Amino acid sequence: MVNFEFLNPTKIIFGKGTIAQLGDEIKAHGGTKVLVHLGGGSVKKNGVYDQVINSLNAAGVSFVEQWGVRPNPRVKLIREGIEICRKENVDFILAVGGGSVIDSAKGVAVGVPYDGDVWDFYIGKAEPKTKLPVATVLTIPAAGSESSWSSVVTNDEGAFKRPLDDAVLFPAFSILDPEATYTLPPYQTACGVADMMAHVMERYFTNIQHVELTDRLCEATLKTIMNNVKTALSEPENYDARAEIMWSGTVAHNNILHMGRIGDWASHNIEHELSAVNDVAHGEGLAVIFPAWMKYVYKHDIQRFVQFASRVFNIENNFHEPERTALKGIDALETFFRSIGLSTKLSEIGIGEDKFDMIAVKVLKSDGKTAGNFVKLTAGDIKKILEIAK
Amino acid sequence: MVNFEFLNPTKIIFGKGTIAQLGDEIKAHGGTKVLVHLGGGSVKKNGVYDQVINSLNAAGVSFVEQWGVRPNPRVKLIREGIEICRKENVDFILAVGGGSVIDSAKGVAVGVPYDGDVWDFYIGKAEPKTKLPVATVLTIPAAGSESSWSSVVTNDEGAFKRPLDDAVLFPAFSILDPEATYTLPPYQTACGVADMMAHVMERYFTNIQHVELTDRLCEATLKTIMNNVKTALSEPENYDARAEIMWSGTVAHNNILHMGRIGDWASHNIEHELSAVNDVAHGEGLAVIFPAWMKYVYKHDIQRFVQFASRVFNIENNFHEPERTALKGIDALETFFRSIGLSTKLSEIGIGEDKFDMIAVKVLKSDGKTAGNFVKLTAGDIKKILEIAK
Repeated sequence: MVNFEFLNPTKIIFGKGTIAQLGDEIKAHGGTKVLVHLGGGSVKKNGVYDQVINSLNAAGVSFVEQWGVRPNPRVKLIREGIEICRKENVDFILAVGGGSVIDSAKGVAVGVPYDGDVWDFYIGKAEPKTKLPVATVLTIPAAGSESSWSSVVTNDEGAFKRPLDDAVLFPAFSILDPEATYTLPPYQTACGVADMMAHVMERYFTNIQHVELTDRLCEATLKTIMNNVKTALSEPENYDARAEIMWSGTVAHNNILHMGRIGDWASHNIEHELSAVNDVAHGEGLAVIFPAWMKYVYKHDIQRFVQFASRVFNIENNFHEPERTALKGIDALETFFRSIGLSTKLSEIGIGEDKFDMIAVKVLKSDGKTAGNFVKLTAGDIKKILEIAK
Repeated sequence: MVNFEFLNPTKIIFGKGTIAQLGDEIKAHGGTKVLVHLGGGSVKKNGVYDQVINSLNAAGVSFVEQWGVRPNPRVKLIREGIEICRKENVDFILAVGGGSVIDSAKGVAVGVPYDGDVWDFYIGKAEPKTKLPVATVLTIPAAGSESSWSSVVTNDEGAFKRPLDDAVLFPAFSILDPEATYTLPPYQTACGVADMMAHVMERYFTNIQHVELTDRLCEATLKTIMNNVKTALSEPENYDARAEIMWSGTVAHNNILHMGRIGDWASHNIEHELSAVNDVAHGEGLAVIFPAWMKYVYKHDIQRFVQFASRVFNIENNFHEPERTALKGIDALETFFRSIGLSTKLSEIGIGEDKFDMIAVKVLKSDGKTAGNFVKLTAGDIKKILEIAK
């Protein structure tokens, strides 16, 4: 186990009917003028928008709205949001949506008190020192951004997608009502599940030894997610299944699964560039890349992959040929992704071999000479993983 | 799953050599004059005291010391600590020790800004509104007080032991260096393990349905603790085993295992009165009471006890006679407690049948008409549990 610090100050308000607490909670956190940051119109169809506005009005909190955050949120919209905040004297940012809306809101929040261009933070040119407080009403369990210190943003000029991790980014509070996810279509439900599973697996595959507690917490989270997603897909209004998935998505990324470990994150870095190239849904991109990454790296620590197969998928270990057990675990993961309707091949998500060189170069441009920690991948390695996934 | 709020603002600094960060961290949290709150002399023997004082001196933080916190900390010492703080203009409380020292420090911290007697908070006569900030350097992994909102204090006038739970009690930060636990004697190591396992099990045995994620997180934590304690007992300076146990003790009680559930806590309430009567070590008292409580209540939800036996102890389910599986799980727990050197009978810890009536009455005096949530125990039920444990 390596030394670590754990701090997660985000307050979570979880359960049925909790959106009604929003306005009062914003006031309790000192918000007087709110930017309500939103995506497309889905929250108008499922009633979440009305619940949000009713709660703000009931509490007497004034607000302005900014619509239009897309999946793989763009820095351009963030810059516009910053201008709105400055013009309207906004002192509190509220994200209503999924990870893209929340990541975008975090960008606005750090950008308002900063003199330069907000993109500076995402390319490491500056570090955020402060931000406007952010709250979230989560509608898509996936990214974990509701209690994470991360924001991932895309810049169309160059098709770069870059993560920013900083303690200043933790939301003040997040409201998670599983009923707000009842109308989430099967494809988005599945993508969300792949994303949260990837968050756990990025942490799981580590070179740090003696991380038993967090290993087991990771396995517990993966099993819970997989055990509930098919219920959520076949019975979209099953509260219990939606609730297990929603809370798992937060636990997967609030850092409790990460303590004492060094995660890998190569699959995320590769996927970010797939999304930047072709607007691939992040979760589906991960369902493509993760099994391929595993097939490429498993020999680096076969016993860790045996443990994954054994404890997560209950695959009986072949003690004489553990490699077979390891491979069965990887197959089980890919089979699971396909069983919930996700692609696991690049050809199925419109990314051809002609893009492989460019993707490999761009992954490394954001991460120095190699990508990942479990195995440090060169551009050649990344191309081989893309070959496996093609 | 029931609606819940999760908030745990305590910063954890975990690992080898981290006590050296103490002084700077106190300064970063605004502390200028510190009450160093301590137990007996063990921290002088194992070097922790010197590390603490060196770090405070290096950072130029002034301090006064208060020694003498005993297991089952007394309100009398807390009152004395409050007086010292007022006289010396202390603005920051540092607990160096185990759960008793930390619980006592929290009592001092809420008492200083309060006009009345600090015991008011423990008997529900007043609610703490504010406190001095508290930091901890943990030396006994057990109570989880280092990142909990709890403080349990004993009043010798009447031999009452009472818990106070309030969000104001979260420490500002806690330093956990597993090396500080190397000198912990086997008995205290085992008592700590029983305490943290009880914290998990109090949460595990719930009537709330569909709590799969937290069920699995609880099972992961129990397995990790049990899997490491024998190594820690036979190799007291095994860093990895000490680290797994230390971090498990925090996770067991930082509320992440509790979300969406309603815990039981009858065993804790009964044990508190054992400790108040006879200064029993809290962990050993729990090792006595918990298996007896289980034997008395398991028929209330046999399948939950089957799940416990199956997932925590890998006992194969007897599908035709699941009750046998449930009982095997309870036996396995009791066997485990005995295997690490703990008593599991009241007669072994000096509590005779003549005390049973008084204990039952005192448990209910603190908790209204019944104790516990999984099964609501009357005084008659509590006496029967004590009979099973005798």
